[in-house]
Amino acid sequence: MGGTRIDGFLNGRLQIEQPIDGYRAGADAVMLAAACPARPGETVVELGCGVGTASICLGWRVPGVTLTGLERQPDYAAMADRNAKRNDLPLSVVTGDLSRMPDTLKAASFDHVIANPPYFRDATPAPDALRAEARHEDTPLRAWVDAGLRRLRPGGHLLMIHRPERLNELLAALAGRAGAIAIMPIAAREGREAGRILLSARKEAKGALRLLAPFVMHAASAHSGDREDLSPAASAVLREGAAINLR
Amino acid sequence: MGGTRIDGFLNGRLQIEQPIDGYRAGADAVMLAAACPARPGETVVELGCGVGTASICLGWRVPGVTLTGLERQPDYAAMADRNAKRNDLPLSVVTGDLSRMPDTLKAASFDHVIANPPYFRDATPAPDALRAEARHEDTPLRAWVDAGLRRLRPGGHLLMIHRPERLNELLAALAGRAGAIAIMPIAAREGREAGRILLSARKEAKGALRLLAPFVMHAASAHSGDREDLSPAASAVLREGAAINLR
Repeated sequence: MGGTRIDGFLNGRLQIEQPIDGYRAGADAVMLAAACPARPGETVVELGCGVGTASICLGWRVPGVTLTGLERQPDYAAMADRNAKRNDLPLSVVTGDLSRMPDTLKAASFDHVIANPPYFRDATPAPDALRAEARHEDTPLRAWVDAGLRRLRPGGHLLMIHRPERLNELLAALAGRAGAIAIMPIAAREGREAGRILLSARKEAKGALRLLAPFVMHAASAHSGDREDLSPAASAVLREGAAINLR
Repeated sequence: MGGTRIDGFLNGRLQIEQPIDGYRAGADAVMLAAACPARPGETVVELGCGVGTASICLGWRVPGVTLTGLERQPDYAAMADRNAKRNDLPLSVVTGDLSRMPDTLKAASFDHVIANPPYFRDATPAPDALRAEARHEDTPLRAWVDAGLRRLRPGGHLLMIHRPERLNELLAALAGRAGAIAIMPIAAREGREAGRILLSARKEAKGALRLLAPFVMHAASAHSGDREDLSPAASAVLREGAAINLR
């Protein structure tokens, strides 16, 4: 890995070390954290936590949650551990692979599982091997869903952020095992198709699938010279750490 | 069946006879017609065409399409036939059940299949047997998708309107057999979850699933005293017969 640097998240409230050239956490991790309905006292595990951005954002918003992160790449896991300490937030990082779940997690059952799986199915050459591993999946998406559902108590929430084109795979992996599915499209601007989806489901629940109103990231008019054109809702989430309600 | 009456569609451009007390076509049929990308010279079959509203709206918007409607209930099929003649639009109505596809349709292959299947899974007592049959499914949703895909040429378009809670079943039925899926949420008002979805797919296609921006039916502010508060887009579709673009 090349060098690392420290980036501010939530308008500088959190300081996150991450690789300069590798996979870099961004708005998606913050959105994932915002949409997790964990309450104080509940337990959360993040599958593939990377440098810990989503878990740390969640810990900042909901004091009193118990946070565990699973990360396969030791360099990222070490950074996640340092990032939690740097921000004085309790995140227990486990180095390991979700498709060979470490015993310490196998024994546990959580209220919430969150995950931001790799977005791209086919590995393409990348200058940095770590970045390639974080952006390209070699663990099938179904294995992420399987691992997540196994780690949940009945009624527990699985929450993922992914690209809309994987919606059918996500729903197929959930079929018969989770219900009360809610899908929130995330669109760059009003009137645009979704670039991401937030998908939540409850283990062994029966509720009907719901397709929620989109979360719109940017304000209606784009001025290329403007440095910042977040929508009010996106600004609240990305800069102030507000929650997103999927229920 | 009790009496029938003639309702205006597309701001009175079309006259549709339907039962006074039975299942009554409405905005959903018009939306379905609006979203079908058929071009002049192409062939369309509507599964479960009822009194023919969607097919007739489509025929009005796209002169030169060849329209076929399949309807199980003879009274509705007869009305569909009369409605087509009344509006001077060519709709060939076949009385029959999609789960026992009539030979005349089995032999054919279409460019487009459209359908507005019954919305409710469990039959509940209804005062009118025909209405109950049209609103409640006894043919599983998967059979609608199966029948639709079988009637399409490779690359042909399947288009359905349904409730969002059936999205997972629809996607499961399409899995491995159709691609280039596009989902358009239909919301009563901006910021509301979807009350309907338009779902299109192309037989044997490979394209990625897309989750489009919602189609919003009503204007932002609801004034209970107003007779009409359609959004401009909904007014264009429901009153002027405009198309909806899912591509």
